[in-house]
Amino acid sequence: MDDTRIWTAGIVVIGDEILSGRTQDRNVAQIGLWLNLQGIRLREVRVVADDMAAIAEAVTTLAGRNDYCFTTGGIGPTHDDITVDAIAAAYGLGVEVHPRARQVLENYYGSRGGLTEARLRMARVPAGASLIENRISGAPGIRLDNIFILAGVPHIAGQMIDALTGTLPGGKPLLSTTLGCWVPESEVADILRHAERTHEGCQIGSYPFFREGKVGANFVIRSTEADGLERCAADLAAELADVGFETVPGGI
Amino acid sequence: MDDTRIWTAGIVVIGDEILSGRTQDRNVAQIGLWLNLQGIRLREVRVVADDMAAIAEAVTTLAGRNDYCFTTGGIGPTHDDITVDAIAAAYGLGVEVHPRARQVLENYYGSRGGLTEARLRMARVPAGASLIENRISGAPGIRLDNIFILAGVPHIAGQMIDALTGTLPGGKPLLSTTLGCWVPESEVADILRHAERTHEGCQIGSYPFFREGKVGANFVIRSTEADGLERCAADLAAELADVGFETVPGGI
Repeated sequence: MDDTRIWTAGIVVIGDEILSGRTQDRNVAQIGLWLNLQGIRLREVRVVADDMAAIAEAVTTLAGRNDYCFTTGGIGPTHDDITVDAIAAAYGLGVEVHPRARQVLENYYGSRGGLTEARLRMARVPAGASLIENRISGAPGIRLDNIFILAGVPHIAGQMIDALTGTLPGGKPLLSTTLGCWVPESEVADILRHAERTHEGCQIGSYPFFREGKVGANFVIRSTEADGLERCAADLAAELADVGFETVPGGI
Repeated sequence: MDDTRIWTAGIVVIGDEILSGRTQDRNVAQIGLWLNLQGIRLREVRVVADDMAAIAEAVTTLAGRNDYCFTTGGIGPTHDDITVDAIAAAYGLGVEVHPRARQVLENYYGSRGGLTEARLRMARVPAGASLIENRISGAPGIRLDNIFILAGVPHIAGQMIDALTGTLPGGKPLLSTTLGCWVPESEVADILRHAERTHEGCQIGSYPFFREGKVGANFVIRSTEADGLERCAADLAAELADVGFETVPGGI
């Protein structure tokens, strides 16, 4: 493990249903949290339509400039599932039926009406790709070099990343700690800026909220160094207390 | 209104807290639904970190190739709020205090401790920009040509787009209708593909789910033509009924 290098990832969310507002995406937050634990930083996300050119542009860009690229959606059995074809075309690869995926689907659908032509679509992979197993639905995810092609249904995508836990090289996990405070963030902006400047390697995000008829904010401190993180949080809490604002460890 | 042209928009979601998985984005779905009603198609979304270069790249690309570009996040009073600076820099513009924004903030903070330097940050706009009023927090959104700079807090962003309702040129609203069905989508993939092919101007999305221990799917038909949409839905329901699957109008 390289202690200094920052490992990054991008996610391409594929699906008209996200862009139309019909479906609330849940995969970005789920994969982002999981990546933190793998020591990999989620650097960017794109949401694109079910469109060959849009998928190709997003995947080649994010896979090209990050260590890892994850896609979600568009790998089911219906006509609007074009992720595999789009990625294969983007890299000039053919599409083939993966023998192990075919076997997995044959087993799964053996007692569920058999492996039809539509279902066999879910065994199609870009030539040379390997599989990411999935215990729920039978249909596996797909790995092509640094590209991980996952399902769109969040609990299936969750199973697929779970199967990858601990297998991807990464750096130090990004740690975070949160201080909640019943204060308008604008009143303590200088204190926040000062705390970030005087604690190297720490970033502080300020996230305001309105609750119980009152204004407050959560201050999230992030660092790869546990000691530095703790010092920054302690100093920030002390500086806020000095001007009369008590903080709530863990956030409000 | 141009009846044939498709008007498109992009959204740039700005914020480390979305990428870290800490905060679940709600603005994409909210703005996507609202855009449909304005006759504007959300074509693409990017989520980027609180980083000048990343914001500039995403905003200039999406604003350049869509009719409209919306940003959410990064317009508060703290050091991590850099959206205005990043967009101004991307277009080679200065940043200035907007007199009307200053006045709005003075009124709002008059009874709340006064207009501090941190709070005055929220009156800064790229030179030449106009304001999008916001009845909740005082701090306004910002319009720079076809770029709409909105708050990150969903209910404030919601107020800002509400203020824009009916003011943006668009085309025909995209209509949709949903048929739910207790069927594995893989069993009816051919019927879906055929229905889409034989109904010009209609797209059909298939969204599987697992509920009450059973497999089902919602089929969402989209079109700008109400008549065509209705015909497609009726034909699809009839074809599914022919092979023994009853559909639930409105979805399951």
